[in-house]
Amino acid sequence: MNRLSLTQEFSVPYKYEVFFTENLFEKENTLFKDFIVNFGNKDYQKKVLFVVDEFVAKSHKNLTSQIVAYFNHENFAELMPEILVLEGGENCKNDPRYYEEVIRAINEHGIDRHSFVACIGGGALLDMVGYAAGISHRGVKLIRIPTTVLSQNDSGVGVKNAVNYLGKKNFLGTFAPPVAVFNDMQFLESLGERDLRGGLAEAIKVALIKDIEFFKWIIAHIEELIAGNKRVMQEQIFRCAQLHLQHIASGDPFETGSARPLDFGHWAAHKLEYLSDFQIRHGEAVAIGICLDTLYSYLKGYISQKEAEGVVYLFQDLGFATFHSALAENDKINLFNGLNEFREHLGGQLTITLLEKIGKGFEVHEIDFDLMKKAVDLLEELSQ
Amino acid sequence: MNRLSLTQEFSVPYKYEVFFTENLFEKENTLFKDFIVNFGNKDYQKKVLFVVDEFVAKSHKNLTSQIVAYFNHENFAELMPEILVLEGGENCKNDPRYYEEVIRAINEHGIDRHSFVACIGGGALLDMVGYAAGISHRGVKLIRIPTTVLSQNDSGVGVKNAVNYLGKKNFLGTFAPPVAVFNDMQFLESLGERDLRGGLAEAIKVALIKDIEFFKWIIAHIEELIAGNKRVMQEQIFRCAQLHLQHIASGDPFETGSARPLDFGHWAAHKLEYLSDFQIRHGEAVAIGICLDTLYSYLKGYISQKEAEGVVYLFQDLGFATFHSALAENDKINLFNGLNEFREHLGGQLTITLLEKIGKGFEVHEIDFDLMKKAVDLLEELSQ
Ligand SMILES: NC(=O)c1ccc[n+]([C@@H]2O[C@H](COP(=O)([O-])OP(=O)(O)OC[C@H]3O[C@@H](n4cnc5c(N)ncnc54)[C@H](O)[C@@H]3O)[C@@H](O)[C@H]2O)c1
Ligand SMILES: NC(=O)c1ccc[n+]([C@@H]2O[C@H](COP(=O)([O-])OP(=O)(O)OC[C@H]3O[C@@H](n4cnc5c(N)ncnc54)[C@H](O)[C@@H]3O)[C@@H](O)[C@H]2O)c1
Ligand SMILES: [Zn+2]
Ligand SMILES: [Zn+2]
Repeated sequence: MNRLSLTQEFSVPYKYEVFFTENLFEKENTLFKDFIVNFGNKDYQKKVLFVVDEFVAKSHKNLTSQIVAYFNHENFAELMPEILVLEGGENCKNDPRYYEEVIRAINEHGIDRHSFVACIGGGALLDMVGYAAGISHRGVKLIRIPTTVLSQNDSGVGVKNAVNYLGKKNFLGTFAPPVAVFNDMQFLESLGERDLRGGLAEAIKVALIKDIEFFKWIIAHIEELIAGNKRVMQEQIFRCAQLHLQHIASGDPFETGSARPLDFGHWAAHKLEYLSDFQIRHGEAVAIGICLDTLYSYLKGYISQKEAEGVVYLFQDLGFATFHSALAENDKINLFNGLNEFREHLGGQLTITLLEKIGKGFEVHEIDFDLMKKAVDLLEELSQ
Repeated sequence: MNRLSLTQEFSVPYKYEVFFTENLFEKENTLFKDFIVNFGNKDYQKKVLFVVDEFVAKSHKNLTSQIVAYFNHENFAELMPEILVLEGGENCKNDPRYYEEVIRAINEHGIDRHSFVACIGGGALLDMVGYAAGISHRGVKLIRIPTTVLSQNDSGVGVKNAVNYLGKKNFLGTFAPPVAVFNDMQFLESLGERDLRGGLAEAIKVALIKDIEFFKWIIAHIEELIAGNKRVMQEQIFRCAQLHLQHIASGDPFETGSARPLDFGHWAAHKLEYLSDFQIRHGEAVAIGICLDTLYSYLKGYISQKEAEGVVYLFQDLGFATFHSALAENDKINLFNGLNEFREHLGGQLTITLLEKIGKGFEVHEIDFDLMKKAVDLLEELSQ
């Protein structure tokens, strides 16, 4: 009896679409309605609970009444009478009361595993609401409607959600793909300069590790990107989202291994967000993190000084600050604690992505602290 | 631009083994060690954090010291110095402080996605610890070591975990398969009569809906099962676990549809657990729930009166109470609220499994309340 065993083996398929559109809730735009109607059981009247980012609601004053009108128009699904408007930004991931509030609403409105929670907001709100939806009834259906450049080109199209806990970024979370993503360009118009710019950091990230042509394209369109040119911004978002999606599907979607190339520049970024008490945003922190790991790639001899500096200058041309004083505090020990936390979060070996060349990332499992300190110093110099 | 979209599609594979053994942590038994050593990256020193059911620790006094000795013996992995001993039973799923405590320990001991949380306990503790492990870092590795009949033959081998929330059973949870399950017969020896018996309800459940031979086998072994005969108990657990595993793998493991045949008898069971303030255990509630839906199947004309009564008498022969006063309270309205909660939890259409014949379940989407009231009355009669 000692070696008796049964083996369990199965695969779980996932499929979702990322739509690119404008004016999602104008009556003429049937994209959202068509999706809901055609999803799953057609005979069953579906419920939709909306959660909206406060800043989005403030700057698109007609949004909630537009949603109500959109549902009234054809009565294709049951809109929950309560539309939750919640503070967006990192605070909604830091304070458990926010996801508890979403869970309360899921319960009160009887949102079940065949009903939808539709979240309209930045990456932080999407992460938090996705977490609440992911653990309620072991997962109710999530529709993401990202409203920042970063969430449209990166976080909103992926499979992860999370909240911060015990002072650690994304400590609690689940892998829970959405059932659909609607990227509506219209929302980006109310973004401030910082958030328009912030998302470009993730585009540069994915370009640097995966696609030199896209990197060159970004450099060729700096002016339009700064100005928020709609057509160029749209192309940037589409290409970046595509690279992210391809990467997730071709790799290890639920990250059972240690590899996480899409986290290029993120070990320092995550730590910086905390060290700055979330005064710098995710994209801004990622910009600095990329510069750091790019310079380290140069100091390690993988890429040339010119190439590395070119990356730093690109960020600066786009208006990013490429240094933050917290990087150097406490003789960089605070920063380096981030390496260990990053390893713990991923698990297993430390795995850091560096640049083999522009357009191609690769992984290392050790970081030379002295050299990384030099990279910090070099970055400080280049940023003066 | 209006219909531009990208489609994301991938599958996530899962695989785990359910081992049947005795004296798992005796030095000579290398099953556990072999599993850890061969799992994933062999070069990486793995951490294991244990969480143990208080009743198990109390009745197997040497357990923790045996675990320490087992790890010291060959140093195949890093045992976390703190072995959490937590209250088992439904209360650990009702009170959020328990999973918060597990998450605290996961954080403090730096358990990462390549480290293990090993839980030794009944179905309730396994569910709660599985939930804590499932949301920490989006899922650290879970090893289940079930210590009740019910958890060895049913809950412990499956893919679900959960805690209760907002007064609702399993309201929060995730689908998160374990990396391994170790069913150690030795643990069952300290079980009280109620828990030895309770697990048999799940065996009868799966037999009734899937395997008439197994059903006949149970009837032929009533005496040995009551007496806790080791060989017979082991066979019961093995066959039942096998049926559960097959069912999960052949169907819809993460329950994206509405079908849940394994929940035969459970709509009433879940409600009864609450109505009795958890004075009756899951298996005991399931026994009553099965009797109810079996009688309803008879009243609907699917099975004969004799077959239906035979099921009730089988439970009675095994020592189960087949009625509970809460079933009839408030003119059965309390009970029927459970139907709606059950639908909500599953989502979509109400889906209830009935018996087409002994050994074969099938699904209906409507319940005739008057007839169900009759089934309650009939069950009360038969139980006097
Ligand atoms: N899940 C993932 O895979 C993943 C990947 C990358 C980043 N993230 C997370 O995403 C978050 C960052 O997201 P973000 O960059 O979108 O920032 P954000 O969500 O923090 O939003 C920034 C600010 O802009 C506001 N805002 C959002 N949309 C607006 C609009 N259209 N008009 C005006 N104001 C608007 C928000 O209320 C907030 O105050 C971080 O928490 C990060 O960890 C997650
Ligand atoms: N995840 C699933 O798929 C699934 C399926 C079925 C049931 N469940 C859940 O499982 C739970 C019931 O599990 P259970 O029947 O194992 O009961 P339990 O976990 O509630 O345990 C009953 C009692 O026995 C004690 N105990 C456990 N092992 C013991 C041992 N070896 N010796 C002495 N005492 C011991 C416990 O401390 C507890 O007090 C319910 O919460 C139910 O919802 C989950
Ligand atoms: Zn990022
Ligand atoms: Zn059960």
